[in-house]
Amino acid sequence: MLNEDRLFPIEPKAREFARALYSEIKDLPIVSPHGHTDPRWYAENEAFPDPAKLFVVPDHYVFRMLCSQGVPLTDLGVPRVDGGETETDSRKIWRLFAENFYLLRGTPSRGWLEHSFQHVFGLTKRFGPDTADEFYDHINDCLQKPEFRPRALFERFNIEVIATTESPLDDLKWHKMIRESGWTGGRVVTAYRPDPVVDPEFEGFTENVEKFGEITGLNTTDYDQYLDAHRQRRAFFKAFGATSSDHGHATARTEDLPKAEAAALFQKALMGKCTPEEADAFRGQMLTEMARMSIDDDLVLQIHPGSMRNHSDEVMARHGRDKGFDIPTQTNYVKALRPLLNAVGMNPKLTIILFTLDETAFARELAPLAGVYPALKLGPAWWFHDSPEGMRRYRETVTETAGFYNTVGFNDDTRAFCSIPARHDVARRVDCAFLATLVATGRLDEDEAPDVARDLTYNLVKRAYRL
Amino acid sequence: MLNEDRLFPIEPKAREFARALYSEIKDLPIVSPHGHTDPRWYAENEAFPDPAKLFVVPDHYVFRMLCSQGVPLTDLGVPRVDGGETETDSRKIWRLFAENFYLLRGTPSRGWLEHSFQHVFGLTKRFGPDTADEFYDHINDCLQKPEFRPRALFERFNIEVIATTESPLDDLKWHKMIRESGWTGGRVVTAYRPDPVVDPEFEGFTENVEKFGEITGLNTTDYDQYLDAHRQRRAFFKAFGATSSDHGHATARTEDLPKAEAAALFQKALMGKCTPEEADAFRGQMLTEMARMSIDDDLVLQIHPGSMRNHSDEVMARHGRDKGFDIPTQTNYVKALRPLLNAVGMNPKLTIILFTLDETAFARELAPLAGVYPALKLGPAWWFHDSPEGMRRYRETVTETAGFYNTVGFNDDTRAFCSIPARHDVARRVDCAFLATLVATGRLDEDEAPDVARDLTYNLVKRAYRL
Amino acid sequence: MLNEDRLFPIEPKAREFARALYSEIKDLPIVSPHGHTDPRWYAENEAFPDPAKLFVVPDHYVFRMLCSQGVPLTDLGVPRVDGGETETDSRKIWRLFAENFYLLRGTPSRGWLEHSFQHVFGLTKRFGPDTADEFYDHINDCLQKPEFRPRALFERFNIEVIATTESPLDDLKWHKMIRESGWTGGRVVTAYRPDPVVDPEFEGFTENVEKFGEITGLNTTDYDQYLDAHRQRRAFFKAFGATSSDHGHATARTEDLPKAEAAALFQKALMGKCTPEEADAFRGQMLTEMARMSIDDDLVLQIHPGSMRNHSDEVMARHGRDKGFDIPTQTNYVKALRPLLNAVGMNPKLTIILFTLDETAFARELAPLAGVYPALKLGPAWWFHDSPEGMRRYRETVTETAGFYNTVGFNDDTRAFCSIPARHDVARRVDCAFLATLVATGRLDEDEAPDVARDLTYNLVKRAYRL
Repeated sequence: MLNEDRLFPIEPKAREFARALYSEIKDLPIVSPHGHTDPRWYAENEAFPDPAKLFVVPDHYVFRMLCSQGVPLTDLGVPRVDGGETETDSRKIWRLFAENFYLLRGTPSRGWLEHSFQHVFGLTKRFGPDTADEFYDHINDCLQKPEFRPRALFERFNIEVIATTESPLDDLKWHKMIRESGWTGGRVVTAYRPDPVVDPEFEGFTENVEKFGEITGLNTTDYDQYLDAHRQRRAFFKAFGATSSDHGHATARTEDLPKAEAAALFQKALMGKCTPEEADAFRGQMLTEMARMSIDDDLVLQIHPGSMRNHSDEVMARHGRDKGFDIPTQTNYVKALRPLLNAVGMNPKLTIILFTLDETAFARELAPLAGVYPALKLGPAWWFHDSPEGMRRYRETVTETAGFYNTVGFNDDTRAFCSIPARHDVARRVDCAFLATLVATGRLDEDEAPDVARDLTYNLVKRAYRL
Repeated sequence: MLNEDRLFPIEPKAREFARALYSEIKDLPIVSPHGHTDPRWYAENEAFPDPAKLFVVPDHYVFRMLCSQGVPLTDLGVPRVDGGETETDSRKIWRLFAENFYLLRGTPSRGWLEHSFQHVFGLTKRFGPDTADEFYDHINDCLQKPEFRPRALFERFNIEVIATTESPLDDLKWHKMIRESGWTGGRVVTAYRPDPVVDPEFEGFTENVEKFGEITGLNTTDYDQYLDAHRQRRAFFKAFGATSSDHGHATARTEDLPKAEAAALFQKALMGKCTPEEADAFRGQMLTEMARMSIDDDLVLQIHPGSMRNHSDEVMARHGRDKGFDIPTQTNYVKALRPLLNAVGMNPKLTIILFTLDETAFARELAPLAGVYPALKLGPAWWFHDSPEGMRRYRETVTETAGFYNTVGFNDDTRAFCSIPARHDVARRVDCAFLATLVATGRLDEDEAPDVARDLTYNLVKRAYRL
Repeated sequence: MLNEDRLFPIEPKAREFARALYSEIKDLPIVSPHGHTDPRWYAENEAFPDPAKLFVVPDHYVFRMLCSQGVPLTDLGVPRVDGGETETDSRKIWRLFAENFYLLRGTPSRGWLEHSFQHVFGLTKRFGPDTADEFYDHINDCLQKPEFRPRALFERFNIEVIATTESPLDDLKWHKMIRESGWTGGRVVTAYRPDPVVDPEFEGFTENVEKFGEITGLNTTDYDQYLDAHRQRRAFFKAFGATSSDHGHATARTEDLPKAEAAALFQKALMGKCTPEEADAFRGQMLTEMARMSIDDDLVLQIHPGSMRNHSDEVMARHGRDKGFDIPTQTNYVKALRPLLNAVGMNPKLTIILFTLDETAFARELAPLAGVYPALKLGPAWWFHDSPEGMRRYRETVTETAGFYNTVGFNDDTRAFCSIPARHDVARRVDCAFLATLVATGRLDEDEAPDVARDLTYNLVKRAYRL
């Protein structure tokens, strides 16, 4: 059984206040403006296959930890690029997971999983080798029932709106199918993630741009028409509810080059002749172009920089992308964002939401920047830092300089569907704990805290993402 | 009404101990060895104009936060470089400030303002749109009274000594006027801030050096005489109480070049031909020269590195310097300070006080350096980090390696006069909280804590700054 | 008298739980897998000379702090390279230490010293100028007694096993003497630290490699035979109990060069013609070579990067290495370790234990890397961070992403013999405090905490170091 006071301050009076605050916001609807769930789930509304395929095989937080202790990814059913052998017996995978569950002690994954077991499936025993089969059978039974189908869970999770993330080359057919299905229980929107056609180092960049031309009927090898193609696809995405674009570059570099220079870089990129430095410059230029388009079409611009993707060549070759081997790197923002901010940062109509994997930048660079530029807001603690300690450090290092109102509420950023309520619950608890601490130390008045809690949970995200 | 136990530990016994500690040091005089108040205030002793001009228009912490939420700086009365239109109706500015006061929740500015309202003006209601006019009228009335003139406040604030900051080109006429006025209630000293004549990238560097020559009667285009001019002006500043110089470079770079090389760089600088790299080297060289002069004339050398000034070209062009767009950057010290420390760092007669805007350097670089070099001391948490969380992190990351006695007490570093008692109060409370925590966890004996509290509040700053 | 609840949480219930946890693990044997005590002590088992030579003269934590406040190292008896005058009157040194003992307030050294005074020598008064002589006399008397000889203390400290650190050029005669002495009370093993023969910038590198050849009977100017010489010496060290090698490079750089390139670099190094960049590359190549040897011979590979050694030229010239002037620098790991991890990181048979002096890397880089690569584990908070706050930050920034089981327990890493029980006690207390906090905030179940405490104290270090 989960501790009902988990993540609250330890001191009894502050804990009591945090608990009271939390009770006022815990049932607010979930607004999930950025994530990676599969729109197909909501479109087809088919049953999730089995416990292992729900909780283990797709969750890189889980399998990376087991991998770190020598469990081969193939024993966990992680698919191979070459279609070679990988474990297919879900019960076997589940038991292996159970045996190694103790490895997750002290991690947020442990909390998310236990929250899902208890709140989604009603399981309150401790998970481990002794209970592995019992859990498997129970979850498996549940998954056959209508009330555990994606749409039913979506409604039960009290999700008001969720955003998925798609490439400009995506036809958004699942989103179309959702719309046409007449489902009224949930709002699912897309987000514009153009990495495949703006990153010269993305696999198949040149072919992607070509396909981009086919889809839009434009000559996308011409820089002007290439930009027009973005405008057109952004409008198409907006028609499926998109209110944001998203950009996951290796650095926070931005550029605001003269047009001829940008066009020349683009030609070089199409010919596969960009140096790494030029590829980085082109990506940086595209951030500024996207920001300019955002001023016209109102999409919010999200920047997710700083991950070195696919650190292990061996794992990349065997299993491909997104297998837990993306590692954060040091990221500098002050100089990197200057071209973008000089171009559009003073425009209060624009919203740029900036994330980081380098927490050292919060107090030093990001809070000072977001605390002065009208266009800039800070995204929540992200990825490895989407955790109790990470969220606490976020509030402690951001608030004093940027305040609460240059932040944008919580993002779950997940493809693990059942973890969504768990993750939002952690964020709500940590925020209430932080506010209770401010009140207990005379930094916020007692009667202001509920307003702020509601802002952090619900109002800020709706406003920032225009949802 | 402010919470009387604000910023103390939450746990009741530790809180009680912190409160007792605080009661012993809270009334010690304020020693303010580094700041930017205007000596003219103390010289002329005229009334402050009105609430907006006292609290909003000159306070970049306040107007940067409103700017970040889309309030134009011109609506807040921030002057324009071109003399163009800016709001002049102080009551209108004040109301706009009140409407947006909620943005400051969780920030130190909120605490400083409330402390000023209550302790300086006796206002204990909550400030906001409903009370804006009441506050305006009351403060405005107060400002007309003699007991709210600068000197009266100075005495009421219990300021023992305050340092202002002037350029070598300043004639120190306000300081002269203070001296000649016979005012005995407060000690106001200057500090030597030579940026305009040591930074080749400062606006008008060459003309400044020329003027430097006129003032000193030396041929300051000759490197030797240029150094002599510094010696002469430092002596002049000492005559007006200066005990320190101050240096605000973009990096912590220092150099100890052969004289011919330094002189050649200086010639290049005068001709405006320095590359950015050479300009940085020259600034670094001047730090070492200033340190050498300090050994002779006993001025304490302060280094304030790491701010990228005037990040927004647009704001710089419209409103000029110091408008909240100075952003901290990552700063490296170990290699950067080596030439200086190799030249003079082992000299126990010299005091170099080093500040940082990059808190990551405290545990890693600065505490280890200050914990071994006799000449080096660490300045307190600075600028964006002059806040409860910033000060706590400072003590937690500095103390274990540098101890208390390689730190130098608190600096308010402010141009916001009424915030001075508030800022010192925050520092005293956070230090008492830190000491109470050490005692509660067996890291300091109960009977030692009052001595340390007095050292951190009063003794260390007087000793370090030779006041 | 030390506070019996020191370093535990302040809140009474969490404190009580921490105390209970601690009581279960506080008497577990000390496993010290990495340190710098002198094997000669255990071999000869002679009395330590006097209090100053035990506590002051060899302890760079102590004398660096006094040096930072202007006490000359020669007044503290620190030997000079030129054999010149240095204080030899131990009582005088001791009194000077006592007068300045207050400088250590708030530092871990203060805690270690008080723990030693109380637990090793039964002294419970406060140390200072008033008690200096009393302490001196008492400790001096004790040191004459058989129960204060190194072996007796070793047994009393309940050390199960300790590792020392030796160069490949060392003949391990003291280890031989220990073995042949028939002492059964303690296990002392060596560790392979090849810096003198793998670092082209080490003093006398070429001569060292030559001597390496003489010792092994191999032509160590040939790259293949040079590598064979390492294999041979590693085997020799293993025969004296070594289970690990250790590498203290300035950066975390690794390389995996084609053999011809590596061999060519080696030739350049032997001729003293390596640029700093090439020297760094060669050191990086040797890390990967050592890792490959580790796969064959099972030695654990320790990497201790990131210290800029001998920062002051003056102190280096006068007093030599290891005099408190080694300063941590910013260290990047993600790109730097990639060649090594691509070569051997997925091998679960290999154990690489990585340390850092740059705490900012824990949450951002090191926990994500150790949380996925089977070969990689994280060493504990190290050197300047081997302190209550440092250890707390370590657990808070590492655990959420790497868990507990990618860490390896505690290292004391010390040459200060009497501080060993004190340092392990601090680690045990901080870990219990951390676990108690997790339990109090619902992140770990109450009945799991004792298991984890035992793992962190005893099991993990034995397993990771194969002891």
